Amino acid sequence: MKLGRLNHIGVATPSIAASILHFHDMMGATDISEPFDMPEQGVKVCFVNTPTGSDMNGTQIELIEPLDENSPIHGFLAKNPQGGQHHVCFEVEDISEARAWFEGQDKRILGPTRIGAHGTPIFFLHPKDMMGQLTEIMETPRGEDGGGH
Amino acid sequence: MKLGRLNHIGVATPSIAASILHFHDMMGATDISEPFDMPEQGVKVCFVNTPTGSDMNGTQIELIEPLDENSPIHGFLAKNPQGGQHHVCFEVEDISEARAWFEGQDKRILGPTRIGAHGTPIFFLHPKDMMGQLTEIMETPRGEDGGGH
Repeated sequence: MKLGRLNHIGVATPSIAASILHFHDMMGATDISEPFDMPEQGVKVCFVNTPTGSDMNGTQIELIEPLDENSPIHGFLAKNPQGGQHHVCFEVEDISEARAWFEGQDKRILGPTRIGAHGTPIFFLHPKDMMGQLTEIMETPRGEDGGGH
Repeated sequence: MKLGRLNHIGVATPSIAASILHFHDMMGATDISEPFDMPEQGVKVCFVNTPTGSDMNGTQIELIEPLDENSPIHGFLAKNPQGGQHHVCFEVEDISEARAWFEGQDKRILGPTRIGAHGTPIFFLHPKDMMGQLTEIMETPRGEDGGGH
């Protein structure tokens, strides 16, 4: 296992529209994607791109709003009505190797490997096995030098 | 206000030693700083460096362990014994301008501007004014191209 890019941090919000205003008007973000639904995950998502020293290829902020009461984000917002930090996502070169690695370490994996918001395979690891952090593992998008945009 | 680099995400832990094992042995991190005490903040800290497409200048993970029961991290760990995501830190070019900006927007600033773990001035914004995220604002270290190492 080799640590890859911190692709994004997931931030739950009761309103992506309000979060976009917050990041654009208050925090001065200039590069925010159009929100889109991921009905199979029960969420609407949107990415705030952050700068590095040379471009906008920094760790993204993934805004996540529940689509309905069955969404996995719904329970999080019940406990944290304003929203807040929900998960971290690290890239790996090979999702199957990574899954086998964590399985071999007896880490609980939450469901099957599936296609994530960047179009590459992902899975989630149980926060209680990950020092309290819900952790997403995502295969690096090909031909994008790890940018994940 | 212009959004700068996501310098680091702060992760509270009951044991930096255990978190270093987790990030090194389990997650495959190869570049982890020596832990050091910040007694004026009541914490011990340590940085896990993450890669970008070209070097190790990605968003850092700041591990934070309380030095004693008066530490601001102590209460967080009482609620989250395993630890977890504690704050996010964005860089700005000028800390005084940034402070004036957030004051003008009626955001609650937690205490005076002080020197942070990277040796540059920082302040914290109340999570209830920041969509649920405890947010640190940090002046970009000079001559490091925003690297923050």
